[in-house]
Amino acid sequence: MATLGDIGVSALINILTAFAFLLAFALLRIQPINDRVYFPKWYINGGRTSPRRGGNFVAKFVNLNCMTYLTFLNWMPQALKMSETEIINHAGLDSAVFLRIYTLGVKIFVPITVVALLILIPVNVSSGTLFFLRKELVVSDIDKLSISNVRTESIRFFVHIGLEYLFTIWICYMLYKEYDNVARMRLHFLASQRRRAEQFTVVVRNMPQMSGHSISDSVDHFFKTNHPDHYLCHQAVYNANKFAKLVRKRDRLQNWLDYNQLKFERHPEKRPTKKAGFLGLWGERVDSIDFYKHQVKEFDKKMALERQKVLKDPKSILPVAFVSFKSRWGAAVCAQTQQSKNPTLWLTNWAPEPRDVYWRNLAIPFVSLTIRKLIISLSVFALVFFYMIPIAFVQSLANLEGLERVAPFLRPVIELKFIKSFLQGFLPGLALKIFLYILPTILMIMSKIEGHIALSTLERRASAKYYYFMLVNVFLGSIVTGTAFEQLHSFLHQSPTQIPRTIGVSIPMKATFFITYIMVDGWAGIASEILRLKPLVIFHLKNMFLVKTERDREKAMDPGSVDYPETLPSLQLYFLLGIVYAVVTPILLPFILVFFAFAYLVYRHQIINVYNPQYESGAAFWPHVHSRIIASLLISQLLLMGLLSTKKAANSTPLLVILPILTLAFHKYCKNRFEPAFRKYPLEEAMAKDIMDRTTEPDLNLKAFLADAYLHPIFRTFEEEELVEVRVDKVRVDRQQSYADNAPTSDLSSPSPPHEVYHSTSPPHHSYQPTSPPQDVYYHGSTPQYAYNFSSPPHYGYHYEAEP
Amino acid sequence: MATLGDIGVSALINILTAFAFLLAFALLRIQPINDRVYFPKWYINGGRTSPRRGGNFVAKFVNLNCMTYLTFLNWMPQALKMSETEIINHAGLDSAVFLRIYTLGVKIFVPITVVALLILIPVNVSSGTLFFLRKELVVSDIDKLSISNVRTESIRFFVHIGLEYLFTIWICYMLYKEYDNVARMRLHFLASQRRRAEQFTVVVRNMPQMSGHSISDSVDHFFKTNHPDHYLCHQAVYNANKFAKLVRKRDRLQNWLDYNQLKFERHPEKRPTKKAGFLGLWGERVDSIDFYKHQVKEFDKKMALERQKVLKDPKSILPVAFVSFKSRWGAAVCAQTQQSKNPTLWLTNWAPEPRDVYWRNLAIPFVSLTIRKLIISLSVFALVFFYMIPIAFVQSLANLEGLERVAPFLRPVIELKFIKSFLQGFLPGLALKIFLYILPTILMIMSKIEGHIALSTLERRASAKYYYFMLVNVFLGSIVTGTAFEQLHSFLHQSPTQIPRTIGVSIPMKATFFITYIMVDGWAGIASEILRLKPLVIFHLKNMFLVKTERDREKAMDPGSVDYPETLPSLQLYFLLGIVYAVVTPILLPFILVFFAFAYLVYRHQIINVYNPQYESGAAFWPHVHSRIIASLLISQLLLMGLLSTKKAANSTPLLVILPILTLAFHKYCKNRFEPAFRKYPLEEAMAKDIMDRTTEPDLNLKAFLADAYLHPIFRTFEEEELVEVRVDKVRVDRQQSYADNAPTSDLSSPSPPHEVYHSTSPPHHSYQPTSPPQDVYYHGSTPQYAYNFSSPPHYGYHYEAEP
Repeated sequence: MATLGDIGVSALINILTAFAFLLAFALLRIQPINDRVYFPKWYINGGRTSPRRGGNFVAKFVNLNCMTYLTFLNWMPQALKMSETEIINHAGLDSAVFLRIYTLGVKIFVPITVVALLILIPVNVSSGTLFFLRKELVVSDIDKLSISNVRTESIRFFVHIGLEYLFTIWICYMLYKEYDNVARMRLHFLASQRRRAEQFTVVVRNMPQMSGHSISDSVDHFFKTNHPDHYLCHQAVYNANKFAKLVRKRDRLQNWLDYNQLKFERHPEKRPTKKAGFLGLWGERVDSIDFYKHQVKEFDKKMALERQKVLKDPKSILPVAFVSFKSRWGAAVCAQTQQSKNPTLWLTNWAPEPRDVYWRNLAIPFVSLTIRKLIISLSVFALVFFYMIPIAFVQSLANLEGLERVAPFLRPVIELKFIKSFLQGFLPGLALKIFLYILPTILMIMSKIEGHIALSTLERRASAKYYYFMLVNVFLGSIVTGTAFEQLHSFLHQSPTQIPRTIGVSIPMKATFFITYIMVDGWAGIASEILRLKPLVIFHLKNMFLVKTERDREKAMDPGSVDYPETLPSLQLYFLLGIVYAVVTPILLPFILVFFAFAYLVYRHQIINVYNPQYESGAAFWPHVHSRIIASLLISQLLLMGLLSTKKAANSTPLLVILPILTLAFHKYCKNRFEPAFRKYPLEEAMAKDIMDRTTEPDLNLKAFLADAYLHPIFRTFEEEELVEVRVDKVRVDRQQSYADNAPTSDLSSPSPPHEVYHSTSPPHHSYQPTSPPQDVYYHGSTPQYAYNFSSPPHYGYHYEAEP
Repeated sequence: MATLGDIGVSALINILTAFAFLLAFALLRIQPINDRVYFPKWYINGGRTSPRRGGNFVAKFVNLNCMTYLTFLNWMPQALKMSETEIINHAGLDSAVFLRIYTLGVKIFVPITVVALLILIPVNVSSGTLFFLRKELVVSDIDKLSISNVRTESIRFFVHIGLEYLFTIWICYMLYKEYDNVARMRLHFLASQRRRAEQFTVVVRNMPQMSGHSISDSVDHFFKTNHPDHYLCHQAVYNANKFAKLVRKRDRLQNWLDYNQLKFERHPEKRPTKKAGFLGLWGERVDSIDFYKHQVKEFDKKMALERQKVLKDPKSILPVAFVSFKSRWGAAVCAQTQQSKNPTLWLTNWAPEPRDVYWRNLAIPFVSLTIRKLIISLSVFALVFFYMIPIAFVQSLANLEGLERVAPFLRPVIELKFIKSFLQGFLPGLALKIFLYILPTILMIMSKIEGHIALSTLERRASAKYYYFMLVNVFLGSIVTGTAFEQLHSFLHQSPTQIPRTIGVSIPMKATFFITYIMVDGWAGIASEILRLKPLVIFHLKNMFLVKTERDREKAMDPGSVDYPETLPSLQLYFLLGIVYAVVTPILLPFILVFFAFAYLVYRHQIINVYNPQYESGAAFWPHVHSRIIASLLISQLLLMGLLSTKKAANSTPLLVILPILTLAFHKYCKNRFEPAFRKYPLEEAMAKDIMDRTTEPDLNLKAFLADAYLHPIFRTFEEEELVEVRVDKVRVDRQQSYADNAPTSDLSSPSPPHEVYHSTSPPHHSYQPTSPPQDVYYHGSTPQYAYNFSSPPHYGYHYEAEP
């Protein structure tokens, strides 16, 4: 058992770590050379073009202004300056609502902390059972402040039950207010959005193959028949996964070519060479630049062939289409209704934003989806429950007595008081953290196999899986395996009323573990988030080896985005910890409070200065956040019941039974009241926007506007010539704000290989023009992705294509 | 433990009872006087007008043709003559699909019975553990044929597991085929239906009150804005519950008046009198006919006042409306989409058929629905779990040893061998049956409190509740309480893996109980269903005391309809029993098979000759039937696992684990594949019917057709004068088939009090014309209800109103 001293040491270490990270961040961020690592959002937004402040050569790389070093924490007030509305405009609703989760945490836990500390600590301490037992049982000091200290059958448990009621009501009230707010924000956001392709478009899956008709014809026929007044046009989807793979390979080759060319430029005395064989390990030694140039050319040919094949072969047209309607009303109707007699055919759903589409999964045959889902849910179950074994093993090591027994030679080191405290405080949390590091990638791959077609959905699914994992392994696993690994197996053989008891009893004992976990994962983890070590290193490496032009430098910039699959579940875990321990061991609450406040500052800063969201889902993750906080409430109620029943508080425990029922009823109410705002698009809203459109722009050419919104990336270069006309029209009509002045300028340092458009989204989005000569290169992303332009002054904006 | 002899006695008793019922039925049905009890459907259909066959006076009442007595079972082949298509036309899809459940039972269980008996009985019998134990333990002979007879750790359990797999696959295959069939039948039925009001209509609930606007205006405005091309008109709903109550009271008074008038006619020497006070027990003695005439007149005045009040008071307009659209497409769109930003406002759903509407619940304020649902689910839970106590008490009495101990003076009687067998075989099942008798009424009331607005939904909800009740109390309750009532309490304290074991072990021992249950509830119960004792008695009582005219005789006829809330759950219980015992005690299967076959015949006869469905839901109950059979499969698999694990068949039990997962996956697939056909209306279908309509009847006046379809009953007489014009138009255009020749003729025996239209639906449907003189009486039901006309030859048909 960790003592208060251990906690103190751990807190000190973690605070120092966090401070070290913050200091490093403060120093690094004001160096001009790191500007693109710490302020990429402003570059992307067009708010900043270059970090060069002074004319001094050294000042280009190192900050010489001493004053800025003194105010190294000034990013904090800066981060708070921007209002929420500005954040929505600057970074989108997703980011703004993501920040609200932290403020919700603060708002929920500040009063709870105050009340719990003021009321429960005196109640618990004065009960003082454990004071007398000190010598017999090894109990931590923390336990004296917890419910464990209260005598069995004590009347004081009514205080705990009362507070559980109070806290539940308070949390539900806050959740209701917040859900209401977020739903309103979402509706307002959607209502105030400009005209966007996805508002008019529906993705149709599993279209039946009619013999003698092309897929395009049958789509046209079906929707002309069944939505005669509203159907506008559709966009077929090609299976270009193989082509996308070629693009990725060519990218890699291009990088090697760039690297070698740069090397040659810097050391013109020696042409770089490489071995032509496998992995460059053996074979004939050849000139690297020539080799890669040749390879790239080969790939260009291959890709041209493959593209022709995809376009010619009718089999490469997938039974999926993006169907566009003349009005938002028509699209809303089609997305929400059943089209065909056979409910597995002509499945309609809202189309994701074009940049949100995960093209690769569109090629998955619909029939396999059910099987994929079954397999993935079984694997997630296996992963969640069998991952426990290694964690339990590491945790049993973190039990120092166990460690000493396994490795007796370590005893002298372990027995050192400081090391002992360090190990006890730091090790369990750290071990868990390392385990968790590789997990999100696995879960994301699993979600991809499940076959969702939008990045946002993929991230939400991965996040759900991660949450189950955390719940079982971090929360339950730590509580149960920590005390007795054997209990795991016997878990299935316990009665349903026994399980909450077993867990409930262990909960107070595990408070110290979770306090250190919060400090390691929460405090130090968040501080390391702001430092952005990995992007920093990668940026400088790229800068050194690959960057030839200003455009390459843009490309080397990796703004990243909020990592929802990882941050949402850990946030939800903190809510769970806070809610469960609020009544049991209230001393844990301040640690959580510090986490929420600190993380809020850090993420606010990152969202304003760094992250560049890949997509905008309009806070579609909120219902999950809400329902998982509700789940936390239920878990806390069950565990408290279990805990109290072991305390023989038979008179008071039944009082708690009504609470979960009320909580569930509240959840159901909220679900009915708010969730449709996140899943459906009300016709009232659609009609209002349609009418507004019709009055403001009666002669809008919607077909032109939508023409290539959901064009598969492969089409970009192929239909260039034909599309230019349409696109120019469109830009003039719709997009007065879009900047179209990105013709290649003298800023281009080398006219050599065909320029690539830089994308922040998934690989298949690469548009690619290998055959066009450098003079008439197009810089357009898949609409409406960001296309970087590198004229001076470089603008950044949403635009649909560029003119030569 | 009951022996094979006990079962034999019980079987004999039940078969004799069933035969007695059948014989009674055969004798009674051929008496002309009972014709209206046993063939009401033909009267309603217009297929039969009078039972009078010969001119003989006696032959009017008693069948004198001896030949017909000899062929007293000839109703069975007659019942099989009608084809399924004919049944659909004759009695609707609900009835036809209801019969399919029985054929499904036969189809599923015939091969299972054959296989199980051929394979399992030899396997079980030859194992012969129990033969040697005979003296020590009291085991029934049935047990020797069951799995109990197999030695623990025997390799023979692989046979049982293999058969469980085989049966599961077979049942799933049959379920899939059947679901497919039913879904197809439903779609075909909906597609081939004639034009009906509900196809164009959507019920809108929880409309917001806008200040300064009437509800009608705001409905018009909302739908004209949001469905401008499709909105046609709407029908406001009035809160007429108080008025309906008055109608019911007046009906009762009218009955008393009729009774007294009839009495006076038969005994003209003495005018009937009654006491005017409370319940006719004290007070001044008055002339009954005058008294009731006066009372009826009073009520007429009251009702006129109340109707005026309802119509004048804007507060009596409920925030509910039936909104009609110009096309089925428009209605399908509106029913399936979300209308308003606030998802709890403007809730749209398909309107039930007009005769299916449960008007009273339309007045329930929407906000209270969530609370009502919560309260009802809690009460159902309480009912399901605390109803157990009395049943357990009765069952413990049915344990003869217990009975002897409680009432030792009964010992001499009980010890008589025959009585003992009778009690053991008959009593437990009977006790349960009596308990279950009053239950459906309670559950129906509960469902009504929940606030569903269609009779069909109410019946389905009541049926679900009854199923839970049967599952817990009849199935689990009989298994567990029978062996040890104390186990019930300790149930919650057992581990999740222990519960299937506890139940699994008791299952083979309970086979005899369920066999007797099947015979009492299934065989004898079904035979009593065909006898229709209750309607028979009531008809003759009414015939004696109330019937003055031929029309009154029509009214006294009570065809009833399939009692879904009761029959569906018990059917599902038989499926459960069959599936659970198929592997455990296969000797039970023939009993179930006999039940399915016999019940099929009986219900087929009843549906053809007796029942008159109150509504047509298009087999909307099928998804429930399907998912409950799946649930039975899961239960059987779990229990078999539990049973085998107590048999220490450790090697073979894990093989079963994969089965529930596969079953669940199958269920999920079926849900996705077929359920939308029962919940939504595909646009393809709607559009096809719209187009057909437009081509066949381009100048249809849809507004007139829909005008009074959802007219609240209270309007019927009030707007008579204005509506006549419209209606006449409508009839000419739409309803060539409708008979309109029901002017009052000389057949009317007395011109006295205003004639009432006879309805088979809920009370508020009564149309009522107290102020109109008898000469210009209207005979119209609430559209499209059956209106009986009593001219000669009396026709019966769907029609919307009558002309004077």
